[in-house]
Amino acid sequence: MNALAIIEKKRDGLELSAQEIEDFVFAYMREEIPDYQVSALLMAVYLQGMNHEETVALTEALVKSGQVLDFSELGTVVDKHSTGGVGDKTTLVLLPLAAAAGVKIAKMSGRGLGHTGGTIDKLACIPGFRTDLPQDVFQRQVQEIGVALTSQTPKLAPADEKLYSLRDVTGTVESIPLIASSVMSKKIASGAQAIVLDVKTGSGAFMQDRKRAKELAQIMTAIGNSLGRKTVALITNMDQPLGFAVGNQLEVVEAMETLKGRGPHDLEELCLRLGAEMLLLAGKASDPAAAKMKLQAILAEGLALEHFRRFVAAQGGDPAVTDDYSLLGRPRQSKELKAKTSGYLNRLDARKVGQAAVLLGAGRLKKDEPIDLTAGILLHKKVGAAVAAGECVAEIFSSSLEKIEAASELLAQAFVIAAEKPQAPALIYERIA
Amino acid sequence: MNALAIIEKKRDGLELSAQEIEDFVFAYMREEIPDYQVSALLMAVYLQGMNHEETVALTEALVKSGQVLDFSELGTVVDKHSTGGVGDKTTLVLLPLAAAAGVKIAKMSGRGLGHTGGTIDKLACIPGFRTDLPQDVFQRQVQEIGVALTSQTPKLAPADEKLYSLRDVTGTVESIPLIASSVMSKKIASGAQAIVLDVKTGSGAFMQDRKRAKELAQIMTAIGNSLGRKTVALITNMDQPLGFAVGNQLEVVEAMETLKGRGPHDLEELCLRLGAEMLLLAGKASDPAAAKMKLQAILAEGLALEHFRRFVAAQGGDPAVTDDYSLLGRPRQSKELKAKTSGYLNRLDARKVGQAAVLLGAGRLKKDEPIDLTAGILLHKKVGAAVAAGECVAEIFSSSLEKIEAASELLAQAFVIAAEKPQAPALIYERIA
Repeated sequence: MNALAIIEKKRDGLELSAQEIEDFVFAYMREEIPDYQVSALLMAVYLQGMNHEETVALTEALVKSGQVLDFSELGTVVDKHSTGGVGDKTTLVLLPLAAAAGVKIAKMSGRGLGHTGGTIDKLACIPGFRTDLPQDVFQRQVQEIGVALTSQTPKLAPADEKLYSLRDVTGTVESIPLIASSVMSKKIASGAQAIVLDVKTGSGAFMQDRKRAKELAQIMTAIGNSLGRKTVALITNMDQPLGFAVGNQLEVVEAMETLKGRGPHDLEELCLRLGAEMLLLAGKASDPAAAKMKLQAILAEGLALEHFRRFVAAQGGDPAVTDDYSLLGRPRQSKELKAKTSGYLNRLDARKVGQAAVLLGAGRLKKDEPIDLTAGILLHKKVGAAVAAGECVAEIFSSSLEKIEAASELLAQAFVIAAEKPQAPALIYERIA
Repeated sequence: MNALAIIEKKRDGLELSAQEIEDFVFAYMREEIPDYQVSALLMAVYLQGMNHEETVALTEALVKSGQVLDFSELGTVVDKHSTGGVGDKTTLVLLPLAAAAGVKIAKMSGRGLGHTGGTIDKLACIPGFRTDLPQDVFQRQVQEIGVALTSQTPKLAPADEKLYSLRDVTGTVESIPLIASSVMSKKIASGAQAIVLDVKTGSGAFMQDRKRAKELAQIMTAIGNSLGRKTVALITNMDQPLGFAVGNQLEVVEAMETLKGRGPHDLEELCLRLGAEMLLLAGKASDPAAAKMKLQAILAEGLALEHFRRFVAAQGGDPAVTDDYSLLGRPRQSKELKAKTSGYLNRLDARKVGQAAVLLGAGRLKKDEPIDLTAGILLHKKVGAAVAAGECVAEIFSSSLEKIEAASELLAQAFVIAAEKPQAPALIYERIA
């Protein structure tokens, strides 16, 4: 393998063969290629792109760099992945909802970073909830109740982690083929046989530009389908936060409310749409309408909530939280944010809301930073709502008044009130399969 | 300084400020920026380019990374730089020729690498010739006889060397702004107040493409002129070797013949044209025609040869070589290359000739490899000449018959004989100032 020749080929805009890509990745893992050659190739990929065949080959090489889990004996294991957003507690609702409909879900989750939250942090609010299930316990639980979640995974796609660390410091993160192969390699290595992707776009999303989000969705679904994993993506709106709650404890409460059929409309609708895709991929429904109706019935009958309680209990958590939210803990300090003018809420900048939540202590900017699980923001208004001057538009929670002051300034900037009533924002832009 | 922000700026095709470029280069020299970030920036520069201001700023930063020599007390010190070619012994002729006309030349030279030769290697053929003059001896010699040459320089533009090593292994060598700033930083740091560039193009040149050679010449002259060094470039033909001799000892003989007024036409003409530019820059002639006439007179009167003898003697060499070429040593083995067909020589591929010379031991592929100073090729025909089948078109010299066999095969491919007489090739394409 000639690392320099591969760099020059990509630099000149030519297509790399699958063999060249695999050789390069594996040699890097064996530390036979220095970081400075890899970063030169990454920059060349960033600027010259990679086509479908190259992206699939890169994904396969990343998958093959480590262990590949196999849950095929459990049936069609379906995974759901969100590219990350503000107030995105979808997974908390979807896991029990889809499992109650017979879908098998073996979920590997991560902690949150930056202005978007992580599922592991949210579940950590529930007293006793263990996210470090060993592999055998995890697998048995999927078999018994159809759903299990763990942060305790073997090194899946370790080459992806190594490459990501280098991309992070060389300005080569935001390359669509690199992002797509990174995400898909993790999903495939974690044993998913079918994958539903929630590709978010808008101010609070990683991909703020809708065209780029669509491109990412297309490339990710193409990779999955090329590698024998049925993959469907929904492109969804992340201009404003999902639901009303932002912050771990607040979001768990909102997720439980949704499981009780009392959730915010946008969150429930997104869960039904993503859940319907999961049912279809798992063969548990014949068409989208039937799948959605099935899920609505499950919600209405309380079966999703019941499944959530079983899931919590199986993971060592106290299922009584569904009846007594105070078991999740309570924030020490709070403040109301008041509207300065009257009119309609025209914009509610999800990124600013997410950043304000980080200032409150609800999120972390560096890996392994401790977070305040009770901190967060409870929105009272979403885009389109009428607002009167002086009316409370959001409640801010934290253990520190200073943090609340800092966050409320930023949060105030997230609200744009104008005289005219805006059009209702779309929730789901497009489905890519 | 934020290295990542600088990488991203260039990645996105934006212009870097002079401050950003200097900060980045200096931080790299202090080892505060890792190689992998530098190589990512180099690839971004390769693919996104740098404008004039950026290239000038980079050149200045490279210059400032080390010592800058100052010969201003000697008058206008003129330097001449060739981008490298096959059979290019121009410097050996030009140094005494221009010095005899009153130009001050303080020449720092390097060894050859690849298919092109280096002046230091050529002069090493002359018994006793020292190329390691200490700085004070060197400077005194420029004062006394107008010309001195040394390979013994302090670390000039050390950042250039460090960057070049990284470019060499990351596919980022052939970037015109990077090449231009690299060359010009060395020239400026070595104290040149005016610079004549011989930018070669064609099969034997580094820049094979004429348009790219012109671009390089324009950028280098613009850098020099922006930094207060009057700079002129000639774009010259390197499709076939310069003169008839290729190989160190053979080239020294040809240079001395040229100093005696019996040199090959192309070599003499190029020396006169480059020399005229040097005279003009040093203020030793009022116009190009007068400058050329002055140099022709110097050659005709034997003053250039006389100056060469003084130069050789001053550097510790034996000036008797000009009368007895056998003092340079003689190759042990030789072979004639015969034409297979009759016709006209249509092409004489300089790169293949240079590569054949390397096979003979006349050049090196790796730094510090020993070379055979007597090895080389003496061409008997140049493009346009009539050739009869069986006629000798070149003599091949080496200390090893095996090497001669290997080289003669490659050399034979350099000669393209056809029925039609080709147009006489141009020697000098263009002047850029």
